[in-house]
Amino acid sequence: MNIFVINSGSSSLKYQLFRLPAEQPLCSGLVERIGLDNSVITHKVFTADGEQVVRRTLDLPDHRAGLQEVLQLLTDAEIGILRDPNEVEAVGHRVVHGGESFAATTIITAEVKREIKRLFPLAPLHNPANYLGIEVAEQIFPRAKQIAVFDTAFHQTLPEYAFRYAVPEELYREQGIRVYGFHGTSHKYVAAQAAAYLGQPEARLITVHLGNGCSMAAVRGGVSIDTSMGFGPLAGLVMGTRSGDIDPSVIFHLIGQLGYDVEQVSNLLNKRSGMLGLAGDSDMRDIGKALEAGDKRAALAYELYAYRIKKYIGAYAAVLNGIDAVVFTAGVGENDALVRRLACHELDFLGIQLDEAKNNVRAPGLREINQPESRVKILVIPTNEELEIAKQCAELLDSGT
Amino acid sequence: MNIFVINSGSSSLKYQLFRLPAEQPLCSGLVERIGLDNSVITHKVFTADGEQVVRRTLDLPDHRAGLQEVLQLLTDAEIGILRDPNEVEAVGHRVVHGGESFAATTIITAEVKREIKRLFPLAPLHNPANYLGIEVAEQIFPRAKQIAVFDTAFHQTLPEYAFRYAVPEELYREQGIRVYGFHGTSHKYVAAQAAAYLGQPEARLITVHLGNGCSMAAVRGGVSIDTSMGFGPLAGLVMGTRSGDIDPSVIFHLIGQLGYDVEQVSNLLNKRSGMLGLAGDSDMRDIGKALEAGDKRAALAYELYAYRIKKYIGAYAAVLNGIDAVVFTAGVGENDALVRRLACHELDFLGIQLDEAKNNVRAPGLREINQPESRVKILVIPTNEELEIAKQCAELLDSGT
Repeated sequence: MNIFVINSGSSSLKYQLFRLPAEQPLCSGLVERIGLDNSVITHKVFTADGEQVVRRTLDLPDHRAGLQEVLQLLTDAEIGILRDPNEVEAVGHRVVHGGESFAATTIITAEVKREIKRLFPLAPLHNPANYLGIEVAEQIFPRAKQIAVFDTAFHQTLPEYAFRYAVPEELYREQGIRVYGFHGTSHKYVAAQAAAYLGQPEARLITVHLGNGCSMAAVRGGVSIDTSMGFGPLAGLVMGTRSGDIDPSVIFHLIGQLGYDVEQVSNLLNKRSGMLGLAGDSDMRDIGKALEAGDKRAALAYELYAYRIKKYIGAYAAVLNGIDAVVFTAGVGENDALVRRLACHELDFLGIQLDEAKNNVRAPGLREINQPESRVKILVIPTNEELEIAKQCAELLDSGT
Repeated sequence: MNIFVINSGSSSLKYQLFRLPAEQPLCSGLVERIGLDNSVITHKVFTADGEQVVRRTLDLPDHRAGLQEVLQLLTDAEIGILRDPNEVEAVGHRVVHGGESFAATTIITAEVKREIKRLFPLAPLHNPANYLGIEVAEQIFPRAKQIAVFDTAFHQTLPEYAFRYAVPEELYREQGIRVYGFHGTSHKYVAAQAAAYLGQPEARLITVHLGNGCSMAAVRGGVSIDTSMGFGPLAGLVMGTRSGDIDPSVIFHLIGQLGYDVEQVSNLLNKRSGMLGLAGDSDMRDIGKALEAGDKRAALAYELYAYRIKKYIGAYAAVLNGIDAVVFTAGVGENDALVRRLACHELDFLGIQLDEAKNNVRAPGLREINQPESRVKILVIPTNEELEIAKQCAELLDSGT
């Protein structure tokens, strides 16, 4: 079954083609600078021998032109994988915000499209771009089922006392002000991997997704019961450029006493805060090097980043009344041994005992990095949102829905 | 030693007179509606036989006139306690914000006053009123030492990774944007009581102050290492009318998408949120009654209020790497058995086991409400900020500083 997975941004388009049940994509690619001069397509074809990379610079006025070009590559006489677009049975779209309307992966109909559009105000940066990707894919792959996989869907199982804010009820009822949570596809994927590895379908897990954006989830029996991002992707953990949790009265102080305007504060907390604000750099690898060179700001930034994770581990252990495993995933979670060490430091009361040597070894695939006697497993599991999207599409098609 | 304790608000003045080492005040009172028509003084004198209450309605143009009237009552021929104001050795002032300048109780000098004034922008509602109380007390009790006890001082021991926000460093260095924490006098008082009761000076404690404002602290060896309020008194737990923690992106959404202005949002989160926003009422006793009558909004509000406490218990257990006791205090903490039950529910992995029967008994003084086998003690300890202020003043005078 050929499934084409699309993640459409405002001026970019990421894609992978899967032939399930094989978990390795046949090809992947990225179209950048759509609508600007000198758009670039980077297309990779994976074969038994390795990968072949094609890079083209050209002018792509819009997403349609971009995806048309991708189709050329997919059906190219030399490096093509498909004879024609009709060999794609489904296109899986990452859609950031499903609001309360979508608690599961959904075949896209006219009504679904209207609903995604209605949710634009909740994700003004992401949903319009995702929507555009859908419209374009409908034209380029007219025979394929279009399927939406929502970043918020996995967290729709949160109990009401976890997803509500303590604000006037009508703001929830009429305006949808609540916790939605994000990175759901990743949390779901690694939680399922962890439960399978442990052989415990009912496992109490804390999943820690640390990429450019960072979030954590408390998962029991494969079901999300709390998560650290909230209404938008700003709350919770410290991120590359986002502040994570911050007293809202700081915002009122910046505006009321220090003369900021709202736009500046939003920009400050979303784009100039987090590790960038603390350490002057948003890339953990660079900050790690600065730390090794004795930079005190870098050291504090690392401590703060890890301390926040540690507090959420404690909070979610309370929510789950004990835990079976902590799972680290995504770029930083998979690769940054220091973050994992600091976050797990002095949590033995919880039964968390890291094995420093195992933690320091880099290796592909799922790894267990706790001491043998640790009551709680500490796992590193590479996330794979594209594969998860492809699998969810296949499941939906197989179920005949 | 006679110590007069003042808590000065913008249009009110609360006071108690202690003759230490006796812990019972000799009298207490409240002046309300200062600067408005029909100001009211309610003055209580405590004797071996009970209490005598004097209530006077009169016009008090300013705080000076109010305190002058209180002095009349203190030196009244019939119900007076003092012959003249010079019998008061110290006036202890509750000052809300000490910034980073004051980590301890401090004798008020001209320089200290300048510094309290400099901190007005950090606590624009409270510090000016506290300052006014100092100026007036200097006139009415000219021979007494004036002493400031800061609500923030106890939390000045937080490590930097706990008190910093992940925002650009210059906002901390130049503008003082950081966690200060509040209710310090209460947290310190009950933490000391708890450590003495346990016979463990190094005890790892979580103190839970639930009044109109609510906050928690992680305390080890009598030292605060984290607290739930932040830059201002809005963050953390759900309160009577304040939201507590909320994704800052909600604020940007309310302003950018729903047309609120900043003032409205600040007002919304400070005065119309919390239990009032969730249940339509800010008084826990009323909400408790509504809950018993089957009101679903009241039930949700209670669940949310307790869930937030529970998550902080977990987070602070992680910060402390295990705990010896959880201490509930202040109006709701001392009196609301349901809140305590919900907050401690299903935390046995932490060694927290509430005794339901003991929890339901109302009694004065320190009470232990855990099961005998509970590894963690659960204590109810009435707070007494005025007594703590008086004691700190006496200590400072005795030390000869």
